[in-house]
Amino acid sequence: MNNMLVVGSLAFDSIKTPAGFKKKCLGGSANYFSLVASRYASVKTIGVVGSDYEDAHIEILATRGVDVSGIERQDGLTFHWEGRYKEDLNEAQTLATHLNVFEKFNPQLSAAHKSCDVLFLANIDPKLQLSVLEQANNPKVVAVDTMNFWIETKYDDLKKVLKKANILFVNQTEALMITRESNAVGAASVLSQFGPQVVVIKRGEYGALLYSKGEYFALPAFPVKNIVDPTGAGDSFAAGFMGHIIKRGLDLNPQDLRRACLEGAMIASFTVEDFGLNRLINLTEGEVSVRFEQYMNTIRIE
Amino acid sequence: MNNMLVVGSLAFDSIKTPAGFKKKCLGGSANYFSLVASRYASVKTIGVVGSDYEDAHIEILATRGVDVSGIERQDGLTFHWEGRYKEDLNEAQTLATHLNVFEKFNPQLSAAHKSCDVLFLANIDPKLQLSVLEQANNPKVVAVDTMNFWIETKYDDLKKVLKKANILFVNQTEALMITRESNAVGAASVLSQFGPQVVVIKRGEYGALLYSKGEYFALPAFPVKNIVDPTGAGDSFAAGFMGHIIKRGLDLNPQDLRRACLEGAMIASFTVEDFGLNRLINLTEGEVSVRFEQYMNTIRIE
Repeated sequence: MNNMLVVGSLAFDSIKTPAGFKKKCLGGSANYFSLVASRYASVKTIGVVGSDYEDAHIEILATRGVDVSGIERQDGLTFHWEGRYKEDLNEAQTLATHLNVFEKFNPQLSAAHKSCDVLFLANIDPKLQLSVLEQANNPKVVAVDTMNFWIETKYDDLKKVLKKANILFVNQTEALMITRESNAVGAASVLSQFGPQVVVIKRGEYGALLYSKGEYFALPAFPVKNIVDPTGAGDSFAAGFMGHIIKRGLDLNPQDLRRACLEGAMIASFTVEDFGLNRLINLTEGEVSVRFEQYMNTIRIE
Repeated sequence: MNNMLVVGSLAFDSIKTPAGFKKKCLGGSANYFSLVASRYASVKTIGVVGSDYEDAHIEILATRGVDVSGIERQDGLTFHWEGRYKEDLNEAQTLATHLNVFEKFNPQLSAAHKSCDVLFLANIDPKLQLSVLEQANNPKVVAVDTMNFWIETKYDDLKKVLKKANILFVNQTEALMITRESNAVGAASVLSQFGPQVVVIKRGEYGALLYSKGEYFALPAFPVKNIVDPTGAGDSFAAGFMGHIIKRGLDLNPQDLRRACLEGAMIASFTVEDFGLNRLINLTEGEVSVRFEQYMNTIRIE
């Protein structure tokens, strides 16, 4: 089966939400993505951590079969994000970003990394995303995530990345920001003209809008009763999405893309139920089956 | 077949959106609702207009079979709302409200009005909603819409209305405001405890969340490419919803409630494509059939 390489952040997150405050819980886009993606496929992770990042933290991925040989450890502290969510849980407010060892992160791909079938470039500096793209040996599918900070500061590099991407994951606010369109429907088709044949606009509690080859697919989110912490929902969504795609042989046909959205949204509905990676770490196959059925019941029209 | 009575506003709206500015276009909740509902059922409309409201304006409803005998004309000017929508078209900003003849509106139901099967109390002063409820002879289904202004100023009256309602339509922002819940999922079930067995949370471009008897249904909106003016989308949604319900014999079973949401969202997707009532006035059955099929294709998962 096709394997997947993910490049992104491994971090500590200090998060304040209406449900409470957690200091330095395990996070980072590559952590969320790898933890979820390992449920579906063979995953290799590239990232950097500091001396405060314990072996036990890396073991969380390793025990799930993730190839962690690309996680380098450097002197200094691990990337630390501090943020909060107000009543409207849809948007994070960054209080502080301590890049620490991440500041000099320069991802180096081994021969095994370079031969990945699927490359997921999580939300990091587009310059690093480009560097990874250049090192990889022609992966079959390249998927990309990004955020407002890079749109504002590295727009030209980001456009170069998009040109080489097959699939783009982006929040609705950020999709509008990049395209200057006034609604998600217009933004999705404009983003597709930048390169990616598949554009997935993430809409938080509202779900997702998928655009590919002139067709739209709209999916509502699973109605989560108790949202504790939205952090990582987007990366979890992308991982579930890519997991489904890889299991289906990377065909990117309309029905598999729709099912991939469903899988992503289903798994992300767990992520938000606890702080950090907590809910994902303890998540059983049984819970996933039950949730999947509940989800289908929630959106079914007969 | 069961017939429907709607009480609400007939108005002129001056609307500014990113697509342009229209002065004094025909609007008001009872206008939107009646125009749409007349596609599905026998409708009687109660409201008040001023001397500036032309016979031709009333004819728009009358030629579609709406019983307009309950539209009284008074000396003075018709209710006039001025509002604008910024880039984020989800929320209207009121610039001015000229109540005019609406200020002394005191709906009086004739014998025919009183014997309605379905009563739709559009977004007006809860005191007026209560007065209409008291005059009506035990309608089989009572549906209610409301807005932030009444939540802030007439909360106790609003709660009395909700106690007698079977179906509540409310925007997500307003649902959170009434219940002080942090998300729509919690808000829907709390609102149901206030009285209505069916709660429909309207989410604008994102669709709707339905709650009834412990079960949720989530529906994404049809992806409209060119949103011109969101005014009236909520009333159109409610009218399509109630239209479906009435055609199905007012059974309120889960599948009909879901189909009712779909119908409401489908018809509302037209409303936003032009200013005021314009798109609805010219809407053909052929366009509706095509849109319905496109919509089903947009949300289908195989």
